[in-house]
Amino acid sequence: MTETYRLHYAPDNASLIIRLALEELGAPYTCVLVDRADAAHKSPAYLALNPNGLIPVLETPEGALFETGAILLWLADRHGRLAPMVNSPERGDFLKWLFFMANTLHPALRMTFYPAQYIGDDQSAQAILRRHMQSEIARHLDTLEGLAAAAPPWFCAPEVSLFDLYLGPLLRWMVLYPAPNGGADWFSIEKWSRLHAMVTRLESRGCVITAIRAEGLGDAPFSAPIYATPPEGSAT
Amino acid sequence: MTETYRLHYAPDNASLIIRLALEELGAPYTCVLVDRADAAHKSPAYLALNPNGLIPVLETPEGALFETGAILLWLADRHGRLAPMVNSPERGDFLKWLFFMANTLHPALRMTFYPAQYIGDDQSAQAILRRHMQSEIARHLDTLEGLAAAAPPWFCAPEVSLFDLYLGPLLRWMVLYPAPNGGADWFSIEKWSRLHAMVTRLESRGCVITAIRAEGLGDAPFSAPIYATPPEGSAT
Repeated sequence: MTETYRLHYAPDNASLIIRLALEELGAPYTCVLVDRADAAHKSPAYLALNPNGLIPVLETPEGALFETGAILLWLADRHGRLAPMVNSPERGDFLKWLFFMANTLHPALRMTFYPAQYIGDDQSAQAILRRHMQSEIARHLDTLEGLAAAAPPWFCAPEVSLFDLYLGPLLRWMVLYPAPNGGADWFSIEKWSRLHAMVTRLESRGCVITAIRAEGLGDAPFSAPIYATPPEGSAT
Repeated sequence: MTETYRLHYAPDNASLIIRLALEELGAPYTCVLVDRADAAHKSPAYLALNPNGLIPVLETPEGALFETGAILLWLADRHGRLAPMVNSPERGDFLKWLFFMANTLHPALRMTFYPAQYIGDDQSAQAILRRHMQSEIARHLDTLEGLAAAAPPWFCAPEVSLFDLYLGPLLRWMVLYPAPNGGADWFSIEKWSRLHAMVTRLESRGCVITAIRAEGLGDAPFSAPIYATPPEGSAT
């Protein structure tokens, strides 16, 4: 692989998940800061890459990709690692949980972090949505803890996978957001021992250590997160 | 392919999307009715197939698959049709919009149909969520109409694709639900002319005609939907 990707990122945003995968794959990439403080992700130049105005975008020789789950899957297939390949007997299982993560768990987090995007400016409706979705998230994590107990080779396994790399940052954000007075204390990762052990293992990997430095995420970004202090840009 | 799949379905539920793909692929399958009137999708036997208790499930020689987007992608890769394959230059584009459909448009519909699952029993909060998400859906369809104008080979193209088959039923449900007095009149598919033309073309395909008969969907299930009158089971 001689391609160099361009990752459009904001510190501690969903682009972190893609950064982790790129690092883990050893794929060459450069970074372009999308400064949220300037709403750069809503600029015409950025909307030309992703009409939905969301972070991340990964520019590839085949065009600009977006949607975290799609980029992850594309990278794994392209580089032949980090997920069961097409025609592997594990592929279907992997896909069904990857889609679950992308369309259920990840949006549930977004609803608690950005309730106005789903329900508008009514503060009391926002609080109801947040509370309800927090209980849904806990239920989903129970489901994933059960999945980990069944020991699929691509989740909480000795070999790291895209699924681990996707879940780690989500768990981090559950501890930190909504922040700082919006109720982050609802969540404690210790409740899910297999997930907790997996993210603790992740923290010793080179890909995570590189991301820590690039985005200022602290020494234990998943098991004991602190707010990002990024060397450049703004996390929110 | 000599495998016979088993589709766990309820009439006019997301399983319809999988049925269309199976028909279009000419893949052998049998159907198992999941009777929602009996909450059969929350039974222990069904939860053993899908711990999230959602329809559909597709039983395959490699296990029970769920999540509409995951099943579609798995089937396309397995049968080598209906989507750009891995290593096709169109694959990334296809994946990013498939994930968008699965994690943004499809959940937005679910929020308007089943607001209690997201926000609990507060009727006024439900109404706020529904109204807000209806405007979000209209925005997403504007985006998809723009995508169709760019004429990717896997959307609104002469050759049918998974993406068309996924979108057709979603458009149908936007007309019909929430039903019948919950405000279905907010939506008129004629506003999006390329999407409208695509679903009208779909209706002449054999796969759709078979689904019409199996699930009682009327003669123009996408362009002029009526409520399902299924030969067996209940649509809600």
